[in-house]
Amino acid sequence: MQFQSLINGSDLIGVSPRDRGIAFGDGVFRTMPVHDGVADCWDMQYHHLSRDAHAIGLVCPPAQLLKDEIAQLGSGIHRAVVKIILTRGDSVRGYAIPSPSSLTRIVTLSAFPQYPADNYQDGVDLHLCELRLGVQPRLAGIKHLNRLENVLARMEWHDSRYADGLLLDMDGYVIECTASNIFIRNGNVLTTPDLSRCGVAGVTRQRILDQAPALGYETEVVRFDLTALMSADEVVICNSLFGVWQVRRLASQNWPEGHLARQLRLMLGMQDETSI
Amino acid sequence: MQFQSLINGSDLIGVSPRDRGIAFGDGVFRTMPVHDGVADCWDMQYHHLSRDAHAIGLVCPPAQLLKDEIAQLGSGIHRAVVKIILTRGDSVRGYAIPSPSSLTRIVTLSAFPQYPADNYQDGVDLHLCELRLGVQPRLAGIKHLNRLENVLARMEWHDSRYADGLLLDMDGYVIECTASNIFIRNGNVLTTPDLSRCGVAGVTRQRILDQAPALGYETEVVRFDLTALMSADEVVICNSLFGVWQVRRLASQNWPEGHLARQLRLMLGMQDETSI
Repeated sequence: MQFQSLINGSDLIGVSPRDRGIAFGDGVFRTMPVHDGVADCWDMQYHHLSRDAHAIGLVCPPAQLLKDEIAQLGSGIHRAVVKIILTRGDSVRGYAIPSPSSLTRIVTLSAFPQYPADNYQDGVDLHLCELRLGVQPRLAGIKHLNRLENVLARMEWHDSRYADGLLLDMDGYVIECTASNIFIRNGNVLTTPDLSRCGVAGVTRQRILDQAPALGYETEVVRFDLTALMSADEVVICNSLFGVWQVRRLASQNWPEGHLARQLRLMLGMQDETSI
Repeated sequence: MQFQSLINGSDLIGVSPRDRGIAFGDGVFRTMPVHDGVADCWDMQYHHLSRDAHAIGLVCPPAQLLKDEIAQLGSGIHRAVVKIILTRGDSVRGYAIPSPSSLTRIVTLSAFPQYPADNYQDGVDLHLCELRLGVQPRLAGIKHLNRLENVLARMEWHDSRYADGLLLDMDGYVIECTASNIFIRNGNVLTTPDLSRCGVAGVTRQRILDQAPALGYETEVVRFDLTALMSADEVVICNSLFGVWQVRRLASQNWPEGHLARQLRLMLGMQDETSI
Protein backbone atom coordinates (compact mmCIF):
# COMPACT_ATOMS: atom_id res chain seq x y z
CA MET A 1 0.00 0.00 0.00
CA GLN A 2 1.32 3.39 -0.90
CA PHE A 3 1.67 6.06 1.73
CA GLN A 4 -0.89 8.73 0.88
CA SER A 5 -1.73 12.16 2.26
CA LEU A 6 -4.18 14.96 1.74
CA ILE A 7 -3.03 18.42 2.77
CA ASN A 8 -6.05 20.70 3.00
CA GLY A 9 -7.72 18.24 0.67
CA SER A 10 -4.97 18.13 -1.96
CA ASP A 11 -2.57 15.31 -2.70
CA LEU A 12 -0.45 17.48 -4.98
CA ILE A 13 1.23 19.82 -2.55
CA GLY A 14 3.61 19.60 0.37
CA VAL A 15 3.38 21.42 3.66
CA SER A 16 4.45 25.05 3.59
CA PRO A 17 7.90 25.59 5.13
CA ARG A 18 6.38 28.37 7.22
CA ASP A 19 3.67 26.16 8.68
CA ARG A 20 3.44 26.60 12.44
CA GLY A 21 3.27 22.84 12.78
CA ILE A 22 6.91 22.69 11.70
CA ALA A 23 8.06 25.92 13.30
CA PHE A 24 6.53 25.39 16.75
CA GLY A 25 4.72 22.04 16.85
CA ASP A 26 1.67 24.30 17.01
CA GLY A 27 -1.06 21.71 16.51
CA VAL A 28 -2.68 18.45 17.57
CA PHE A 29 -3.09 14.96 16.12
CA ARG A 30 -4.88 11.63 16.38
CA THR A 31 -3.99 8.20 15.02
CA MET A 32 -6.57 5.46 14.48
CA PRO A 33 -7.27 2.26 12.58
CA VAL A 34 -9.37 2.56 9.45
CA HIS A 35 -11.31 -0.26 7.77
CA ASP A 36 -12.35 0.26 4.16
CA GLY A 37 -12.31 4.03 4.54
CA VAL A 38 -14.13 4.14 7.88
CA ALA A 39 -12.22 5.12 11.01
CA ASP A 40 -12.74 2.97 14.12
CA CYS A 41 -14.49 4.75 17.00
CA TRP A 42 -14.75 7.85 14.86
CA ASP A 43 -17.14 9.79 17.07
CA MET A 44 -14.85 9.41 20.05
CA GLN A 45 -11.69 10.12 18.05
CA TYR A 46 -13.28 13.26 16.63
CA HIS A 47 -14.44 14.32 20.08
CA HIS A 48 -10.90 14.00 21.45
CA LEU A 49 -9.33 15.71 18.42
CA SER A 50 -11.79 18.56 18.67
CA ARG A 51 -11.32 18.93 22.43
CA ASP A 52 -7.52 18.98 22.05
CA ALA A 53 -7.71 21.51 19.20
CA HIS A 54 -9.92 23.74 21.33
CA ALA A 55 -7.49 23.47 24.25
CA ILE A 56 -4.81 25.27 22.23
CA GLY A 57 -7.19 27.67 20.50
CA LEU A 58 -7.76 25.85 17.20
CA VAL A 59 -11.15 25.28 15.61
CA CYS A 60 -11.48 21.68 14.46
CA PRO A 61 -12.79 21.17 10.90
CA PRO A 62 -16.25 19.62 10.59
CA ALA A 63 -16.37 15.88 11.28
CA GLN A 64 -17.90 15.18 7.88
CA LEU A 65 -15.01 16.82 6.03
CA LEU A 66 -12.48 14.65 7.83
CA LYS A 67 -14.64 11.54 7.40
CA ASP A 68 -14.86 12.21 3.67
CA GLU A 69 -11.10 12.60 3.38
CA ILE A 70 -10.50 9.39 5.32
CA ALA A 71 -12.93 7.62 2.98
CA GLN A 72 -11.19 9.11 -0.06
CA LEU A 73 -7.82 7.73 1.06
CA GLY A 74 -8.92 4.46 2.60
CA SER A 75 -11.77 3.09 0.49
CA GLY A 76 -11.09 -0.41 -0.79
CA ILE A 77 -8.27 -1.03 1.68
CA HIS A 78 -9.22 -3.63 4.25
CA ARG A 79 -7.19 -2.27 7.11
CA ALA A 80 -4.86 0.71 7.45
CA VAL A 81 -3.93 3.52 9.83
CA VAL A 82 -5.03 7.10 9.47
CA LYS A 83 -3.33 10.00 11.16
CA ILE A 84 -4.96 13.42 11.32
CA ILE A 85 -2.78 16.45 12.04
CA LEU A 86 -4.22 19.93 12.55
CA THR A 87 -1.85 22.90 12.72
CA ARG A 88 -2.36 26.63 13.13
CA GLY A 89 -1.41 27.24 9.49
CA ASP A 90 1.26 29.61 8.24
CA SER A 91 2.93 32.56 9.79
CA VAL A 92 6.04 34.34 8.67
CA ARG A 93 7.87 34.33 11.98
CA GLY A 94 7.22 34.88 15.65
CA TYR A 95 4.87 33.27 18.12
CA ALA A 96 2.01 35.77 17.71
CA ILE A 97 -0.95 34.25 15.89
CA PRO A 98 -1.80 35.98 12.61
CA SER A 99 -5.27 37.44 12.36
CA PRO A 100 -7.12 35.86 10.70
CA SER A 101 -5.26 32.66 11.39
CA SER A 102 -5.59 29.66 9.13
CA LEU A 103 -5.58 25.93 9.74
CA THR A 104 -3.59 23.21 8.03
CA ARG A 105 -5.30 19.84 7.84
CA ILE A 106 -3.18 16.79 7.07
CA VAL A 107 -4.79 13.38 6.69
CA THR A 108 -2.37 10.53 6.08
CA LEU A 109 -2.99 6.87 5.37
CA SER A 110 -0.32 4.27 6.04
CA ALA A 111 -0.05 0.50 6.33
CA PHE A 112 -1.25 -1.16 9.51
CA PRO A 113 1.76 -2.20 11.63
CA GLN A 114 2.69 -5.87 11.79
CA TYR A 115 2.67 -6.44 15.54
CA PRO A 116 4.26 -9.66 16.83
CA ALA A 117 1.62 -12.30 17.62
CA ASP A 118 3.53 -12.98 20.87
CA ASN A 119 2.55 -9.55 22.14
CA TYR A 120 -1.06 -10.71 22.14
CA GLN A 121 -0.45 -14.26 23.32
CA ASP A 122 2.25 -13.85 25.95
CA GLY A 123 2.36 -10.15 26.70
CA VAL A 124 5.24 -7.69 26.43
CA ASP A 125 8.34 -6.40 28.17
CA LEU A 126 8.63 -2.69 28.92
CA HIS A 127 11.78 -0.61 29.05
CA LEU A 128 11.93 1.71 32.06
CA CYS A 129 12.81 5.11 30.57
CA GLU A 130 15.44 7.28 32.20
CA LEU A 131 13.88 10.41 30.76
CA ARG A 132 11.32 11.89 33.11
CA LEU A 133 8.38 13.83 31.70
CA GLY A 134 8.25 17.52 32.51
CA VAL A 135 5.17 18.81 34.28
CA GLN A 136 3.06 21.26 32.27
CA PRO A 137 -0.62 21.33 33.26
CA ARG A 138 -1.46 23.65 30.35
CA LEU A 139 -0.54 20.92 27.85
CA ALA A 140 -1.25 17.82 29.94
CA GLY A 141 -3.58 15.25 28.43
CA ILE A 142 -3.49 16.92 25.00
CA LYS A 143 -2.26 14.95 21.99
CA HIS A 144 -0.25 17.90 20.66
CA LEU A 145 2.68 18.04 18.26
CA ASN A 146 5.37 18.80 20.86
CA ARG A 147 6.61 15.26 21.25
CA LEU A 148 10.38 15.57 21.65
CA GLU A 149 10.21 13.98 25.09
CA ASN A 150 8.68 10.87 23.53
CA VAL A 151 11.30 10.88 20.75
CA LEU A 152 14.19 11.13 23.23
CA ALA A 153 12.65 8.45 25.44
CA ARG A 154 12.21 6.15 22.44
CA MET A 155 15.90 6.61 21.60
CA GLU A 156 16.82 4.91 24.88
CA TRP A 157 16.36 1.35 23.61
CA HIS A 158 17.05 -0.59 20.42
CA ASP A 159 16.17 -4.06 21.67
CA SER A 160 13.02 -5.18 19.87
CA ARG A 161 12.15 -7.21 22.98
CA TYR A 162 10.73 -4.02 24.47
CA ALA A 163 7.27 -3.21 23.13
CA ASP A 164 7.30 0.26 24.68
CA GLY A 165 8.98 2.31 27.40
CA LEU A 166 7.45 3.35 30.69
CA LEU A 167 7.60 7.06 31.47
CA LEU A 168 7.54 8.58 34.93
CA ASP A 169 7.23 12.28 35.59
CA MET A 170 9.82 14.45 37.34
CA ASP A 171 8.31 13.56 40.71
CA GLY A 172 8.44 9.82 40.09
CA TYR A 173 4.77 9.24 39.32
CA VAL A 174 3.86 6.73 36.62
CA ILE A 175 2.32 8.53 33.63
CA GLU A 176 2.22 6.42 30.46
CA CYS A 177 4.41 4.69 27.89
CA THR A 178 5.94 6.54 24.94
CA ALA A 179 3.07 5.51 22.63
CA SER A 180 0.46 3.98 24.91
CA ASN A 181 -1.47 4.47 28.14
CA ILE A 182 -1.19 2.14 31.10
CA PHE A 183 -3.56 0.48 33.57
CA ILE A 184 -2.83 -1.55 36.67
CA ARG A 185 -5.21 -3.97 38.34
CA ASN A 186 -5.45 -4.71 42.05
CA GLY A 187 -8.32 -7.05 42.86
CA ASN A 188 -11.27 -5.69 40.93
CA VAL A 189 -9.91 -2.13 40.76
CA LEU A 190 -8.46 -0.84 37.48
CA THR A 191 -6.27 2.21 37.97
CA THR A 192 -4.79 4.51 35.34
CA PRO A 193 -2.55 7.53 36.02
CA ASP A 194 -3.98 10.98 36.47
CA LEU A 195 -2.87 13.00 33.40
CA SER A 196 -3.60 16.48 34.65
CA ARG A 197 0.10 17.41 34.94
CA CYS A 198 1.58 15.64 31.90
CA GLY A 199 0.92 12.77 29.50
CA VAL A 200 -1.49 12.10 26.65
CA ALA A 201 -5.05 10.90 27.23
CA GLY A 202 -5.74 8.32 24.52
CA VAL A 203 -9.10 7.20 23.23
CA THR A 204 -8.54 3.56 24.19
CA ARG A 205 -7.77 4.60 27.78
CA GLN A 206 -11.09 6.45 27.83
CA ARG A 207 -12.96 3.50 26.33
CA ILE A 208 -11.59 1.21 29.04
CA LEU A 209 -12.59 3.68 31.74
CA ASP A 210 -16.07 3.88 30.21
CA GLN A 211 -16.68 0.19 29.62
CA ALA A 212 -14.79 -1.71 32.32
CA PRO A 213 -17.42 -1.08 35.02
CA ALA A 214 -19.84 -3.24 33.01
CA LEU A 215 -17.37 -6.12 33.50
CA GLY A 216 -17.45 -5.63 37.26
CA TYR A 217 -14.34 -3.47 37.60
CA GLU A 218 -14.09 -0.34 39.63
CA THR A 219 -12.01 2.25 37.81
CA GLU A 220 -9.98 5.07 39.23
CA VAL A 221 -7.75 7.83 37.84
CA VAL A 222 -5.13 8.75 40.42
CA ARG A 223 -1.42 9.40 40.87
CA PHE A 224 0.67 6.37 41.72
CA ASP A 225 4.38 5.65 41.78
CA LEU A 226 6.60 2.88 40.43
CA THR A 227 6.38 0.87 43.65
CA ALA A 228 2.60 0.72 43.29
CA LEU A 229 2.95 -0.40 39.68
CA MET A 230 5.49 -3.08 40.57
CA SER A 231 3.21 -4.56 43.22
CA ALA A 232 0.05 -4.57 41.07
CA ASP A 233 -1.72 -7.85 40.31
CA GLU A 234 -1.67 -7.13 36.58
CA VAL A 235 -0.41 -4.39 34.28
CA VAL A 236 -1.61 -3.65 30.74
CA ILE A 237 -0.82 -1.01 28.13
CA CYS A 238 -3.21 0.20 25.44
CA ASN A 239 -3.54 2.33 22.36
CA SER A 240 -5.92 2.60 19.42
CA LEU A 241 -3.75 0.57 17.07
CA PHE A 242 -2.64 -2.52 18.95
CA GLY A 243 -5.49 -2.52 21.43
CA VAL A 244 -4.36 -3.89 24.82
CA TRP A 245 -1.25 -5.87 25.72
CA GLN A 246 -0.44 -7.64 28.95
CA VAL A 247 2.82 -6.47 30.55
CA ARG A 248 4.93 -9.45 31.57
CA ARG A 249 8.14 -7.76 32.60
CA LEU A 250 9.49 -4.37 33.69
CA ALA A 251 13.03 -4.08 35.05
CA SER A 252 13.38 -6.77 37.75
CA GLN A 253 9.64 -7.40 38.04
CA ASN A 254 7.92 -10.34 36.34
CA TRP A 255 4.19 -10.81 36.32
CA PRO A 256 2.59 -14.24 35.89
CA GLU A 257 0.41 -14.90 32.86
CA GLY A 258 -2.68 -12.74 33.07
CA HIS A 259 -5.97 -12.43 31.27
CA LEU A 260 -6.81 -8.76 31.68
CA ALA A 261 -5.48 -7.66 28.29
CA ARG A 262 -7.45 -10.36 26.46
CA GLN A 263 -10.57 -9.54 28.44
CA LEU A 264 -10.27 -5.84 27.63
CA ARG A 265 -9.59 -6.49 23.93
CA LEU A 266 -12.75 -8.58 23.78
CA MET A 267 -14.66 -5.87 25.59
CA LEU A 268 -13.43 -3.27 23.08
CA GLY A 269 -14.03 -5.50 20.07
CA MET A 270 -10.31 -5.32 19.27
CA GLN A 271 -9.51 -9.01 19.39
CA ASP A 272 -9.07 -9.04 15.62
CA GLU A 273 -6.23 -6.51 15.57
CA THR A 274 -3.48 -9.11 15.89
CA SER A 275 -1.24 -9.88 12.99
CA ILE A 276 -2.11 -13.60 13.27
CA MET B 1 10.51 41.21 -0.62
CA GLN B 2 9.04 37.82 -1.33
CA PHE B 3 9.14 35.12 1.29
CA GLN B 4 11.51 32.45 -0.01
CA SER B 5 12.57 29.02 1.17
CA LEU B 6 14.91 26.23 0.23
CA ILE B 7 13.93 22.75 1.40
CA ASN B 8 16.95 20.48 1.09
CA GLY B 9 18.21 22.98 -1.46
CA SER B 10 15.08 23.11 -3.59
CA ASP B 11 12.59 25.95 -3.88
CA LEU B 12 10.12 23.79 -5.82
CA ILE B 13 8.86 21.42 -3.17
CA GLY B 14 6.96 21.58 0.11
CA VAL B 15 7.75 19.73 3.28
CA SER B 16 6.67 16.10 3.35
CA PRO B 17 3.52 15.54 5.43
CA ARG B 18 5.35 12.74 7.22
CA ASP B 19 8.28 14.93 8.23
CA ARG B 20 9.13 14.44 11.89
CA GLY B 21 9.36 18.20 12.25
CA ILE B 22 5.59 18.36 11.78
CA ALA B 23 4.72 15.10 13.52
CA PHE B 24 6.78 15.59 16.66
CA GLY B 25 8.59 18.93 16.51
CA ASP B 26 11.63 16.69 16.13
CA GLY B 27 14.23 19.29 15.22
CA VAL B 28 16.02 22.53 16.03
CA PHE B 29 16.19 26.03 14.58
CA ARG B 30 18.00 29.36 14.59
CA THR B 31 16.90 32.80 13.43
CA MET B 32 19.35 35.56 12.51
CA PRO B 33 19.73 38.79 10.56
CA VAL B 34 21.29 38.55 7.13
CA HIS B 35 22.93 41.38 5.19
CA ASP B 36 23.35 40.91 1.46
CA GLY B 37 23.37 37.14 1.80
CA VAL B 38 25.73 36.99 4.78
CA ALA B 39 24.35 35.97 8.17
CA ASP B 40 25.37 38.07 11.17
CA CYS B 41 27.57 36.26 13.70
CA TRP B 42 27.48 33.20 11.49
CA ASP B 43 30.20 31.22 13.27
CA MET B 44 28.43 31.56 16.58
CA GLN B 45 24.99 30.86 15.14
CA TYR B 46 26.32 27.76 13.43
CA HIS B 47 28.02 26.64 16.62
CA HIS B 48 24.77 26.94 18.56
CA LEU B 49 22.71 25.26 15.82
CA SER B 50 25.18 22.42 15.63
CA ARG B 51 25.33 22.00 19.41
CA ASP B 52 21.52 21.94 19.66
CA ALA B 53 21.23 19.45 16.79
CA HIS B 54 23.76 17.20 18.49
CA ALA B 55 21.85 17.41 21.77
CA ILE B 56 18.87 15.65 20.20
CA GLY B 57 20.94 13.28 18.08
CA LEU B 58 20.96 15.13 14.75
CA VAL B 59 24.03 15.74 12.62
CA CYS B 60 24.18 19.35 11.49
CA PRO B 61 24.88 19.91 7.77
CA PRO B 62 28.25 21.48 6.91
CA ALA B 63 28.48 25.20 7.62
CA GLN B 64 29.43 25.94 4.02
CA LEU B 65 26.28 24.32 2.65
CA LEU B 66 24.08 26.47 4.88
CA LYS B 67 26.14 29.60 4.13
CA ASP B 68 25.74 28.96 0.42
CA GLU B 69 21.98 28.58 0.74
CA ILE B 70 21.72 31.77 2.79
CA ALA B 71 23.75 33.56 0.10
CA GLN B 72 21.52 32.11 -2.63
CA LEU B 73 18.38 33.46 -0.94
CA GLY B 74 19.73 36.72 0.43
CA SER B 75 22.18 38.12 -2.11
CA GLY B 76 21.32 41.63 -3.23
CA ILE B 77 18.94 42.21 -0.32
CA HIS B 78 20.29 44.79 2.09
CA ARG B 79 18.75 43.39 5.23
CA ALA B 80 16.51 40.39 5.93
CA VAL B 81 15.99 37.56 8.39
CA VAL B 82 17.01 33.98 7.81
CA LYS B 83 15.61 31.05 9.72
CA ILE B 84 17.25 27.64 9.57
CA ILE B 85 15.21 24.61 10.60
CA LEU B 86 16.71 21.12 10.82
CA THR B 87 14.39 18.15 11.35
CA ARG B 88 14.96 14.40 11.60
CA GLY B 89 13.40 13.85 8.18
CA ASP B 90 10.57 11.49 7.35
CA SER B 91 9.19 8.52 9.12
CA VAL B 92 5.93 6.75 8.50
CA ARG B 93 4.67 6.71 12.05
CA GLY B 94 5.90 6.12 15.57
CA TYR B 95 8.64 7.69 17.63
CA ALA B 96 11.38 5.22 16.73
CA ILE B 97 14.02 6.75 14.47
CA PRO B 98 14.31 5.06 11.07
CA SER B 99 17.69 3.61 10.23
CA PRO B 100 19.23 5.22 8.31
CA SER B 101 17.51 8.40 9.33
CA SER B 102 17.47 11.43 7.09
CA LEU B 103 17.58 15.15 7.73
CA THR B 104 15.33 17.90 6.43
CA ARG B 105 17.01 21.27 6.00
CA ILE B 106 14.78 24.32 5.63
CA VAL B 107 16.32 27.74 5.03
CA THR B 108 13.83 30.59 4.86
CA LEU B 109 14.33 34.27 4.10
CA SER B 110 11.82 36.85 5.24
CA ALA B 111 11.59 40.62 5.62
CA PHE B 112 13.30 42.25 8.57
CA PRO B 113 10.68 43.25 11.17
CA GLN B 114 9.79 46.92 11.54
CA TYR B 115 10.42 47.44 15.24
CA PRO B 116 9.08 50.64 16.82
CA ALA B 117 11.80 53.28 17.20
CA ASP B 118 10.46 53.92 20.71
CA ASN B 119 11.62 50.48 21.77
CA TYR B 120 15.19 51.65 21.20
CA GLN B 121 14.80 55.18 22.50
CA ASP B 122 12.56 54.75 25.52
CA GLY B 123 12.56 51.03 26.25
CA VAL B 124 9.69 48.55 26.42
CA ASP B 125 6.91 47.23 28.63
CA LEU B 126 6.77 43.51 29.39
CA HIS B 127 3.68 41.43 30.00
CA LEU B 128 4.02 39.06 32.96
CA CYS B 129 2.90 35.68 31.58
CA GLU B 130 0.59 33.48 33.61
CA LEU B 131 1.87 30.37 31.89
CA ARG B 132 4.79 28.86 33.77
CA LEU B 133 7.46 26.94 31.86
CA GLY B 134 7.71 23.24 32.59
CA VAL B 135 11.05 21.93 33.82
CA GLN B 136 12.80 19.51 31.45
CA PRO B 137 16.59 19.43 31.82
CA ARG B 138 16.92 17.15 28.76
CA LEU B 139 15.60 19.92 26.49
CA ALA B 140 16.65 22.98 28.48
CA GLY B 141 18.70 25.59 26.63
CA ILE B 142 18.04 23.97 23.25
CA LYS B 143 16.34 25.98 20.51
CA HIS B 144 14.13 23.03 19.50
CA LEU B 145 10.84 22.92 17.62
CA ASN B 146 8.61 22.13 20.62
CA ARG B 147 7.45 25.67 21.24
CA LEU B 148 3.81 25.34 22.26
CA GLU B 149 4.55 26.88 25.64
CA ASN B 150 5.80 30.01 23.89
CA VAL B 151 2.77 30.05 21.58
CA LEU B 152 0.33 29.75 24.50
CA ALA B 153 2.21 32.39 26.47
CA ARG B 154 2.16 34.76 23.47
CA MET B 155 -1.62 34.29 23.24
CA GLU B 156 -1.99 35.95 26.65
CA TRP B 157 -1.73 39.52 25.37
CA HIS B 158 -2.94 41.51 22.37
CA ASP B 159 -1.88 44.96 23.51
CA SER B 160 0.94 46.11 21.23
CA ARG B 161 2.29 48.10 24.17
CA TYR B 162 3.96 44.89 25.35
CA ALA B 163 7.13 44.10 23.44
CA ASP B 164 7.37 40.61 24.93
CA GLY B 165 6.14 38.52 27.86
CA LEU B 166 8.22 37.44 30.85
CA LEU B 167 8.20 33.72 31.59
CA LEU B 168 8.83 32.16 34.99
CA ASP B 169 9.24 28.44 35.53
CA MET B 170 6.97 26.25 37.65
CA ASP B 171 9.01 27.10 40.74
CA GLY B 172 8.79 30.85 40.18
CA TYR B 173 12.27 31.44 38.83
CA VAL B 174 12.74 34.00 36.06
CA ILE B 175 13.77 32.23 32.83
CA GLU B 176 13.34 34.38 29.71
CA CYS B 177 10.76 36.14 27.57
CA THR B 178 8.76 34.33 24.88
CA ALA B 179 11.18 35.40 22.13
CA SER B 180 14.15 36.89 23.97
CA ASN B 181 16.57 36.37 26.83
CA ILE B 182 16.81 38.66 29.83
CA PHE B 183 19.55 40.30 31.90
CA ILE B 184 19.34 42.28 35.11
CA ARG B 185 21.98 44.72 36.38
CA ASN B 186 22.81 45.38 40.02
CA GLY B 187 25.78 47.73 40.37
CA ASN B 188 28.37 46.40 37.96
CA VAL B 189 26.99 42.84 37.94
CA LEU B 190 25.02 41.59 34.95
CA THR B 191 22.94 38.52 35.75
CA THR B 192 21.04 36.25 33.38
CA PRO B 193 18.97 33.21 34.38
CA ASP B 194 20.43 29.76 34.55
CA LEU B 195 18.83 27.79 31.67
CA SER B 196 19.77 24.27 32.75
CA ARG B 197 16.16 23.35 33.64
CA CYS B 198 14.19 25.15 30.90
CA GLY B 199 14.44 28.06 28.47
CA VAL B 200 16.35 28.77 25.27
CA ALA B 201 19.96 29.96 25.26
CA GLY B 202 20.20 32.56 22.52
CA VAL B 203 23.29 33.73 20.69
CA THR B 204 22.90 37.36 21.78
CA ARG B 205 22.73 36.26 25.42
CA GLN B 206 26.02 34.42 24.91
CA ARG B 207 27.63 37.40 23.16
CA ILE B 208 26.70 39.65 26.08
CA LEU B 209 28.14 37.14 28.54
CA ASP B 210 31.31 36.98 26.47
CA GLN B 211 31.81 40.68 25.83
CA ALA B 212 30.40 42.54 28.83
CA PRO B 213 33.46 41.89 31.05
CA ALA B 214 35.50 44.08 28.69
CA LEU B 215 33.16 46.95 29.62
CA GLY B 216 33.85 46.39 33.31
CA TYR B 217 30.84 44.24 34.14
CA GLU B 218 30.93 41.07 36.14
CA THR B 219 28.58 38.50 34.66
CA GLU B 220 26.80 35.65 36.35
CA VAL B 221 24.38 32.91 35.32
CA VAL B 222 22.22 31.96 38.27
CA ARG B 223 18.64 31.29 39.33
CA PHE B 224 16.73 34.31 40.56
CA ASP B 225 13.08 35.01 41.23
CA LEU B 226 10.67 37.79 40.31
CA THR B 227 11.42 39.77 43.47
CA ALA B 228 15.09 39.91 42.49
CA LEU B 229 14.14 41.09 39.01
CA MET B 230 11.79 43.76 40.34
CA SER B 231 14.48 45.21 42.59
CA ALA B 232 17.23 45.26 39.95
CA ASP B 233 18.87 48.55 38.96
CA GLU B 234 18.19 47.88 35.28
CA VAL B 235 16.56 45.17 33.18
CA VAL B 236 17.16 44.48 29.48
CA ILE B 237 15.96 41.86 27.01
CA CYS B 238 17.85 40.67 23.95
CA ASN B 239 17.68 38.59 20.81
CA SER B 240 19.54 38.37 17.53
CA LEU B 241 17.01 40.43 15.60
CA PHE B 242 16.22 43.50 17.67
CA GLY B 243 19.45 43.46 19.65
CA VAL B 244 18.89 44.79 23.19
CA TRP B 245 15.98 46.75 24.63
CA GLN B 246 15.71 48.49 27.97
CA VAL B 247 12.77 47.28 30.07
CA ARG B 248 10.86 50.26 31.47
CA ARG B 249 7.85 48.54 32.99
CA LEU B 250 6.70 45.12 34.24
CA ALA B 251 3.43 44.83 36.17
CA SER B 252 3.56 47.48 38.92
CA GLN B 253 7.28 48.10 38.59
CA ASN B 254 8.70 51.07 36.68
CA TRP B 255 12.37 51.56 36.03
CA PRO B 256 13.88 55.00 35.40
CA GLU B 257 15.53 55.72 32.08
CA GLY B 258 18.61 53.54 31.71
CA HIS B 259 21.56 53.26 29.39
CA LEU B 260 22.44 49.59 29.61
CA ALA B 261 20.57 48.52 26.47
CA ARG B 262 22.18 51.25 24.38
CA GLN B 263 25.60 50.42 25.79
CA LEU B 264 25.18 46.72 25.01
CA ARG B 265 23.89 47.42 21.49
CA LEU B 266 26.98 49.53 20.83
CA MET B 267 29.17 46.78 22.26
CA LEU B 268 27.54 44.22 19.94
CA GLY B 269 27.61 46.49 16.91
CA MET B 270 23.81 46.31 16.75
CA GLN B 271 23.03 49.99 17.12
CA ASP B 272 21.97 50.13 13.48
CA GLU B 273 19.14 47.61 13.85
CA THR B 274 16.47 50.19 14.60
CA SER B 275 13.77 50.95 12.12
CA ILE B 276 14.64 54.63 12.17
